[in-house]
Amino acid sequence: MTRFALTLEFDGTPFFGLQRQKDGPSVQQAVEEAAYRVLGEEVRLHSAGRTDTGVHALAMRSHFDIEKHIEPFRLMEALNAHLRPDPIAVTHCEVVADDWHSRFSCSGRAYVYRIANRRAPLTLEKDRLWQIPQDLDHEAMHRAAQALVGLHDFTTFRSVHCQAESPIKTLDRLDVERDGDEVRIHAAARSFLHHQVRSMVGCLALVGMGRWRETRLAEALQARDRQALGLNAPPHGLYFVRAVYPDDT
Amino acid sequence: MTRFALTLEFDGTPFFGLQRQKDGPSVQQAVEEAAYRVLGEEVRLHSAGRTDTGVHALAMRSHFDIEKHIEPFRLMEALNAHLRPDPIAVTHCEVVADDWHSRFSCSGRAYVYRIANRRAPLTLEKDRLWQIPQDLDHEAMHRAAQALVGLHDFTTFRSVHCQAESPIKTLDRLDVERDGDEVRIHAAARSFLHHQVRSMVGCLALVGMGRWRETRLAEALQARDRQALGLNAPPHGLYFVRAVYPDDT
Repeated sequence: MTRFALTLEFDGTPFFGLQRQKDGPSVQQAVEEAAYRVLGEEVRLHSAGRTDTGVHALAMRSHFDIEKHIEPFRLMEALNAHLRPDPIAVTHCEVVADDWHSRFSCSGRAYVYRIANRRAPLTLEKDRLWQIPQDLDHEAMHRAAQALVGLHDFTTFRSVHCQAESPIKTLDRLDVERDGDEVRIHAAARSFLHHQVRSMVGCLALVGMGRWRETRLAEALQARDRQALGLNAPPHGLYFVRAVYPDDT
Repeated sequence: MTRFALTLEFDGTPFFGLQRQKDGPSVQQAVEEAAYRVLGEEVRLHSAGRTDTGVHALAMRSHFDIEKHIEPFRLMEALNAHLRPDPIAVTHCEVVADDWHSRFSCSGRAYVYRIANRRAPLTLEKDRLWQIPQDLDHEAMHRAAQALVGLHDFTTFRSVHCQAESPIKTLDRLDVERDGDEVRIHAAARSFLHHQVRSMVGCLALVGMGRWRETRLAEALQARDRQALGLNAPPHGLYFVRAVYPDDT
């Protein structure tokens, strides 16, 4: 048995999320089926994150175990050939120790959320950003976001379907920056609750539009009540960008 | 009569180029038809460049004349509403002087050509870059490109269908830079010949792959012969990014 770590890039638009679902196509199913066609083995894909329907990944980290002997480069090439035409690419593949686990060994996760702050419809980047036509005050958003950084009970920003044992998490980073008509929100933590990033982004957008005063974000956090959530941002602006492991060099 | 200048962004994938064609959809036709639906007037769209089938634009400059009175902002909003679902957006609209001409007043044009220098298939940016799997030596490409900068006879880099009176042009800039696995080529000139950017990029790619030595680009230029062209790069990596006018502030 050899454990292979994969780095996956995918367009989440056609998938019911990363994790295998009964009711529709998933990234996990597509990769497992490609591996079966390459290797003739049933593999089980594990991943650092569990992205939702429509959420994208620039560098998801995943792994599976296989019996057959194959060079990592050949495995990557063969998986990419068999993944077509699904918009999933294996951008890196390597052999790792048997006790390395893409999910359980992961010590940090990072997302970026992209907002197109403009009135004109999107063309080249349709389905790649959340479009908000009203002018966003990104500086107010950044200031408000700092109330969420640190160790908190994030019940307000947690989906009712979240399976985590505890709503208490440490948010390491929540930065808002503007680049022309694009507003980007960078979030990093050891781990996130289900819908946490989209819920935080939705409320930050309300601050940016002036519909929430800056302090209301802290109040929503302190309420520890899903009813205090203002808005859940749509999935198509969200990208899983990085998984961190203690033994990364 | 009022002259309106438009800034257009479009995904060139579904169009037979910017200019109206007998045999398929064009950006010009889509904008003129949207204007007709908004205004009830037949307008004629003029543009700074004439991008080919599959070529994109981030900021094409165009104009048309209309009889009806309408505020620029309302015109932009109405055009965008009527352009759906075509991937064309009007990102700016203003009234200009009657003697301002998007094509004839234009004193500079800039393109960027995007190459995805990686083996893994493209996912989120499919149809947005030319994919070249072999490692490209972008520094050799940049050095070789400098032989084309300046006043030259660009016959080698000109389509047989080019309608320009003279093949002599001044190329102001041809820079090659790398950003991770993306290689970008920036080209700027007062004007370009038909297929000039794609022809220059194709030959630069041959240099980057090591199939052409650096000096061969200068030799191809001096040959003044289309037969000396190594490769014409595909359209989907090319973006019209800027038109410059003498009265721009």
